[in-house]
Amino acid sequence: MKNKGILRGIFGKPLHPLAQAYVASIPVDSRLYRHDITGSIAHAKMLAKQKIISEEEADLIVNGLISIGEEIEHGKFNSKPELEDIHMNVEARLFEKIGDVAGKLHTARSRNDQVALDLRLFLKEAILETIDRLKNFQKILITFAEANQKVIIPGYTHLQRAQPVLLAHHILAYFEMFQRDKERFRDCLKRTDVLPLGSGALAGVPYSVDRDFLARELGFAVVSANSMDAVSDRDFVIEYEAAAAIAMMHLSRLAEELILWSSAEFGFIEIDEAFTTGSSIMPQKKNPDLAELVRGKTGRVYGNLMAILTVMKALPLTYNRDLQEDKAGLFSTVDILGTSLEVFTEMVRTLKVNSGRTYEAAGTGHTLATDLADYLVKKGVSFRQAYDIVGEIVKYAISKGKSLSELSLEEYYRFSPTFAEDVYSITVETSVVARKVYGGTAPEQVSEALSRAKRLLESEVEGRSD
Amino acid sequence: MKNKGILRGIFGKPLHPLAQAYVASIPVDSRLYRHDITGSIAHAKMLAKQKIISEEEADLIVNGLISIGEEIEHGKFNSKPELEDIHMNVEARLFEKIGDVAGKLHTARSRNDQVALDLRLFLKEAILETIDRLKNFQKILITFAEANQKVIIPGYTHLQRAQPVLLAHHILAYFEMFQRDKERFRDCLKRTDVLPLGSGALAGVPYSVDRDFLARELGFAVVSANSMDAVSDRDFVIEYEAAAAIAMMHLSRLAEELILWSSAEFGFIEIDEAFTTGSSIMPQKKNPDLAELVRGKTGRVYGNLMAILTVMKALPLTYNRDLQEDKAGLFSTVDILGTSLEVFTEMVRTLKVNSGRTYEAAGTGHTLATDLADYLVKKGVSFRQAYDIVGEIVKYAISKGKSLSELSLEEYYRFSPTFAEDVYSITVETSVVARKVYGGTAPEQVSEALSRAKRLLESEVEGRSD
Amino acid sequence: MKNKGILRGIFGKPLHPLAQAYVASIPVDSRLYRHDITGSIAHAKMLAKQKIISEEEADLIVNGLISIGEEIEHGKFNSKPELEDIHMNVEARLFEKIGDVAGKLHTARSRNDQVALDLRLFLKEAILETIDRLKNFQKILITFAEANQKVIIPGYTHLQRAQPVLLAHHILAYFEMFQRDKERFRDCLKRTDVLPLGSGALAGVPYSVDRDFLARELGFAVVSANSMDAVSDRDFVIEYEAAAAIAMMHLSRLAEELILWSSAEFGFIEIDEAFTTGSSIMPQKKNPDLAELVRGKTGRVYGNLMAILTVMKALPLTYNRDLQEDKAGLFSTVDILGTSLEVFTEMVRTLKVNSGRTYEAAGTGHTLATDLADYLVKKGVSFRQAYDIVGEIVKYAISKGKSLSELSLEEYYRFSPTFAEDVYSITVETSVVARKVYGGTAPEQVSEALSRAKRLLESEVEGRSD
Amino acid sequence: MKNKGILRGIFGKPLHPLAQAYVASIPVDSRLYRHDITGSIAHAKMLAKQKIISEEEADLIVNGLISIGEEIEHGKFNSKPELEDIHMNVEARLFEKIGDVAGKLHTARSRNDQVALDLRLFLKEAILETIDRLKNFQKILITFAEANQKVIIPGYTHLQRAQPVLLAHHILAYFEMFQRDKERFRDCLKRTDVLPLGSGALAGVPYSVDRDFLARELGFAVVSANSMDAVSDRDFVIEYEAAAAIAMMHLSRLAEELILWSSAEFGFIEIDEAFTTGSSIMPQKKNPDLAELVRGKTGRVYGNLMAILTVMKALPLTYNRDLQEDKAGLFSTVDILGTSLEVFTEMVRTLKVNSGRTYEAAGTGHTLATDLADYLVKKGVSFRQAYDIVGEIVKYAISKGKSLSELSLEEYYRFSPTFAEDVYSITVETSVVARKVYGGTAPEQVSEALSRAKRLLESEVEGRSD
Repeated sequence: MKNKGILRGIFGKPLHPLAQAYVASIPVDSRLYRHDITGSIAHAKMLAKQKIISEEEADLIVNGLISIGEEIEHGKFNSKPELEDIHMNVEARLFEKIGDVAGKLHTARSRNDQVALDLRLFLKEAILETIDRLKNFQKILITFAEANQKVIIPGYTHLQRAQPVLLAHHILAYFEMFQRDKERFRDCLKRTDVLPLGSGALAGVPYSVDRDFLARELGFAVVSANSMDAVSDRDFVIEYEAAAAIAMMHLSRLAEELILWSSAEFGFIEIDEAFTTGSSIMPQKKNPDLAELVRGKTGRVYGNLMAILTVMKALPLTYNRDLQEDKAGLFSTVDILGTSLEVFTEMVRTLKVNSGRTYEAAGTGHTLATDLADYLVKKGVSFRQAYDIVGEIVKYAISKGKSLSELSLEEYYRFSPTFAEDVYSITVETSVVARKVYGGTAPEQVSEALSRAKRLLESEVEGRSD
Repeated sequence: MKNKGILRGIFGKPLHPLAQAYVASIPVDSRLYRHDITGSIAHAKMLAKQKIISEEEADLIVNGLISIGEEIEHGKFNSKPELEDIHMNVEARLFEKIGDVAGKLHTARSRNDQVALDLRLFLKEAILETIDRLKNFQKILITFAEANQKVIIPGYTHLQRAQPVLLAHHILAYFEMFQRDKERFRDCLKRTDVLPLGSGALAGVPYSVDRDFLARELGFAVVSANSMDAVSDRDFVIEYEAAAAIAMMHLSRLAEELILWSSAEFGFIEIDEAFTTGSSIMPQKKNPDLAELVRGKTGRVYGNLMAILTVMKALPLTYNRDLQEDKAGLFSTVDILGTSLEVFTEMVRTLKVNSGRTYEAAGTGHTLATDLADYLVKKGVSFRQAYDIVGEIVKYAISKGKSLSELSLEEYYRFSPTFAEDVYSITVETSVVARKVYGGTAPEQVSEALSRAKRLLESEVEGRSD
Repeated sequence: MKNKGILRGIFGKPLHPLAQAYVASIPVDSRLYRHDITGSIAHAKMLAKQKIISEEEADLIVNGLISIGEEIEHGKFNSKPELEDIHMNVEARLFEKIGDVAGKLHTARSRNDQVALDLRLFLKEAILETIDRLKNFQKILITFAEANQKVIIPGYTHLQRAQPVLLAHHILAYFEMFQRDKERFRDCLKRTDVLPLGSGALAGVPYSVDRDFLARELGFAVVSANSMDAVSDRDFVIEYEAAAAIAMMHLSRLAEELILWSSAEFGFIEIDEAFTTGSSIMPQKKNPDLAELVRGKTGRVYGNLMAILTVMKALPLTYNRDLQEDKAGLFSTVDILGTSLEVFTEMVRTLKVNSGRTYEAAGTGHTLATDLADYLVKKGVSFRQAYDIVGEIVKYAISKGKSLSELSLEEYYRFSPTFAEDVYSITVETSVVARKVYGGTAPEQVSEALSRAKRLLESEVEGRSD
Repeated sequence: MKNKGILRGIFGKPLHPLAQAYVASIPVDSRLYRHDITGSIAHAKMLAKQKIISEEEADLIVNGLISIGEEIEHGKFNSKPELEDIHMNVEARLFEKIGDVAGKLHTARSRNDQVALDLRLFLKEAILETIDRLKNFQKILITFAEANQKVIIPGYTHLQRAQPVLLAHHILAYFEMFQRDKERFRDCLKRTDVLPLGSGALAGVPYSVDRDFLARELGFAVVSANSMDAVSDRDFVIEYEAAAAIAMMHLSRLAEELILWSSAEFGFIEIDEAFTTGSSIMPQKKNPDLAELVRGKTGRVYGNLMAILTVMKALPLTYNRDLQEDKAGLFSTVDILGTSLEVFTEMVRTLKVNSGRTYEAAGTGHTLATDLADYLVKKGVSFRQAYDIVGEIVKYAISKGKSLSELSLEEYYRFSPTFAEDVYSITVETSVVARKVYGGTAPEQVSEALSRAKRLLESEVEGRSD
């Protein structure tokens, strides 16, 4: 093989078989074949443009690379583990196809800047896809919120019923979370969108390469400013994984709620059977496995983040082989986040709400106590006094086994003369309506929030669309 | 105490002593006293402006809060653990100072939006300080690079000498890393700079509050759009901790290099004794403890990130007491990153370079082999052929115990007829000079990079400056 | 100060003030003062026994150390940050007290083996305390299980009601978890119970010390076998933190269940008000904050584990200053686990069960479907056929809005002729009773399990007892 | 398919295609096929023994399972993703092979106890293999230490030369670490070696199964004591991963040292070319990639631990689908640790030491300063005085550019009259010899330690051997 020596150094002693299996990254990095070929084609064109190789040589190389790409796409490419990685496999195949001119492709380039390039090309695509999936999920959340716009549920703090809220308001809280996630991925994209090619092994290359041409050809916004940084930087990988960890955390919160809400005890929603599974011995079971898996996979994504942070800790400059461990975790995280979003998108699409049950729950458990306090405040009582008075009333009501609305005006009087007939106008509905503040749960606010959300999504341009 | 009931619920049974100690966050969150008071003053003013309380009441409250702030600043404030947190401690003291009118401060507000406000106020400051410290450190790196602009060191991959580079080029790689760190903190700032007040416990408040006034008064760019999200969101904390983890990773890489470089084996630098420590039994020792501690504290910052991610996983909406655990880790991370940057800034300021030693190291170990291959390429040999030829030459040189420059032209001829007298013009200096590509180590490029770096720092405006 | 030079190396240049603050570990390691003094006393005695110092010198040193210990205990000791750590502070004070003879204490010892000793002495105590707290908690679980021995609750998988179980059986699952935790801590103790003193800085000491005497004096089971390992090993710290992470995970699961069970939706238990807190604006709230905090603090303990693992990664032998970062996380973990166990012990002591509600829940949701299938199997139907038949029955029952027990025998016949009158004997009670297998939920099994559990705890001997 | 309903619940609606791909664990858990079949065979035998099924039925089932095992082994088994996992795939194939009697296998069993069983069977094997690999590695360490028994190297603290030590002593430090690792895995084995079968879905099974028979048949030491714990416990997985994280940490420390030692600057060792790789553009490079990868993969193993800890946090009892995420990380960790040990075993086998260079390094840098101080102590000077005197001497020697042995006796006198001619007897060799304490670096101690180590390994019995 022509480029055997590249891997084996000058003495050419073969790697110990155990070592060979250990260093081979091809099972993982073969996923980068498309980006590797794209990068090499641009590199060959640039070499020709700069007269470092001839146009004819460049054509041979480019055509060879294109046909290798097709071979891989059609499953006709047999990668060789002894060639370790996708880059060497492609180059070796190029030698087979076009002969010694293949040896000119690696001019003014090193595997160090090449692999950094491939990974950035991959991640740029992955980020756009991630954003797109987040957006699709947000759309379904809006659709779901709109379809259930009048549904009232208990809002919880400490998993205790606190105050009635609109289900749509609750759902829009997740819209906000995923909106921030998209922003984080966009911020990450800025720092991923940097061309490393031309950095060579570490010091830059001694050829008059045209890095701006490469950037244009490959669609990069910026060219890296320091070659030593360029070959040893994996910030963009960590940043993606950190943003993904936060996004999965958001999904895990929603997953938890879907699991709770579909329990017999809550009974707020019904997950479509296309998204539940049965039990191997309990015929009655209808388990929210998808939500549980999303919650569980959050752990994997956290673990991948910790892994890459640990890998990078205290590594001296520049490239060290430890960096090879950047890919397995990144690919895992990209896939988990992507499929989790897709699955949840479809699951929410068919989610049914038991609005009778949520309404009932929203009104029990003295969830209007704060409204009662606010009622007193509006009649001049200080908030803390009002709080204390209502506390006494709630205590009394509990002792009598009554709800607040079941207390007589006389009973109310005992606690404060400020109460009047209009105390009975406090209902679940008025409680919700009263919270008209920007960002509050009042229907008018939620309706506006839904409009804003839709406009926002429409105004966003990046990514493919479904 | 007036607001005892706030914490103890309607039945007023005291917390079990063990539970009281367990829930008390005051040892940690007392650090937020200034932000709590600032937030409360703005809230009181807004309540008055909106006629929810009277101007007189607001004045009493504001003045009371100001004087509590002074008490705390002067160490005259005794916080009570049974009041759990800084918010309740301040409110209780306000009752002592101004009587029942204090009870009006908490109108249209909940501890949930209050604590979110305080934490955001704190973090906004902390981010600006962090950016400032990163900038100061970058300045010292530039100064250090400029002071050693002609120093050549071996560039490493795999901790093996690879190619000669300028020390300044190496240092500028770190400039780039910290530049990205600053960008990440700025991006985090955008998402921190959001006013949560007005979200109430979770559903918004039933008062005609003016959230835009609050935002202006407190210097927030945006008002939160969803009350349920606002009280349960800690993304900004995680995002800061993730950015800090990456920044500490960068510092740990530099720390590792300083430790290596100051070892007897490398002998590249001398750390000033004001930044080394001795041994309890080995009188000759001069240990790079500061660098070791920075490297070690990286672990703590990673751990803090893992902690908050774990805390947030699968929490149902909205506020849960688990969120209290957001602060200890955040404060620890802010402090570690801040002091690490400060210490490194001062340490690099006095760092001495042994340029004779680095120069010698840069030229040994056949570090010019790539230049020899590039020499052949420029004479028409394909890169892979050139690579193989030079491989053979290096092998030969090693067997003869010679350096490449010690080989005769005749010896070179044996490997390829392309070699000519000008092969001897390849030196450490020409190797460095040849890498003129943008981002490369050539002196002209490094010089431009230094200018760019300085201009960049000058153009940045935020934060205090030293 | 006599031992200033120890810290400042031979040139005596003071540490930069920022560096001094950064390296000082005294705010953290002052917690080890007692262990440091104990270790030094044993060391001085050994030096005298071996005639390395005189008996008179040893007496002076020992008495000096004892009185320093008393000073610290009574808060009369002012540690100096410029002396960095507790070891140097104690030694400096010894010089003040007894003069130059203090300089003999550090013979045949280094801070490296000294600090390893102190930390092991501390952790040995902490492990015994941890085991003791786990045991106390197990006792309360048993008491609680016995007090509610007839209570039936729904057993859950996927948070869906699955089969009825005894509450005591459920609680005993936690007994098992904490039993494994204790075993893990005991295993960790074996590896902690190793005397490092005598290892010197790294190579052993050139004095005829008696390490066995030291081990006896200080209560260690074994003497460390390799000096380089002894000063750079922190496995015992990691192992404690890993065992603690698992124990906190167990507590977090129980915390989650207590939170769920005390929600309005489940309504299974009532947490005593001495362990709940109120809301700042919702007077009706009774929040399970303790359980939430235990759940949240799990994140901190995970983070501490991640921190120490990161610290130790890729550290070359032997001692490196990074190791200083071992203590903050360890102390935090020891405290969190200890207080969490104490708080939960007291909380469970006063927990009330709403057995009517749990019983009702245990019988609804077709939780007896598996029993119905097993009924058929016992009459000769294969399990998979039985499973399918019962699946059809459940489907039918749901469509009719009936429970299984409300179906007529005729209706049963439609699905299988195997059904007979005795199908109505399947009840929540018979379901529970039927699971008589060892480890099953049948009352006789649970009763035996309770006895076993009590005998097990009685047979355990280590630790203090409450 | 007969058991379609098992997965799809009673309504039989197919899973959404995205959900099906998402829940399918077969790509991961197919690795458990052997354990699944082994477990099922034992279960069938037990069912027959207990007359729950007939002997004939059991024979049919057992033979069917055996032939399925052979199909899988010979790659003739096509698993179906829509059957989700290995358990359902095997059962479905059993239906195809032996018809409806296959439906009797799942009597008195649930997937919950089945999967717990399979995982425990797998891990028991994996632990024994891990221990075996650790032992093999220890053997090579001993061989290497013995082959280099007289080699002296500098011992380091803070990566600064501290005191001379034997290379064998340094290597034995790692022997100790791996010894502790084996103990941890053995401790983990105790808690893995527990039979969960018979626990059913969660509550135990209503059949008179013989769990002791199952335990004997499957080689388990103990039968699980609580069914709810048995199906939801993954402690054994976490414990393995925690022990593996510590073991990888140890390997990462050794990896770091091999990387340092094979750098041009240290030049202590030469890694055989069968374990180094070359560069794609620098023909002279010989990179210690294997050591770098071991160091890097440590991050992955840490990440896997964090993942499973996160997965388990706050999960209510009993089985939740989140638990499916236990396997990918465990398999990854088992494989990484196993192959890392194998690769290092072979690499150390061929490691060459440059003992001239290590010896020279051991004697420079005033590494005998502590010995000089100890010399004075033995003549009656207190250690702290001796330390100060030697400090002054080192300072003086540095200023004169001399080593300690180059100072004249007259020069020594200037610092202390205690010095005599015998001061020149302090050499690298005497320094090493002097540290005769148990665990010290003196040749006699190291020789004994080597004997002890060999005896220890011989006395250990478990596991396969190579």
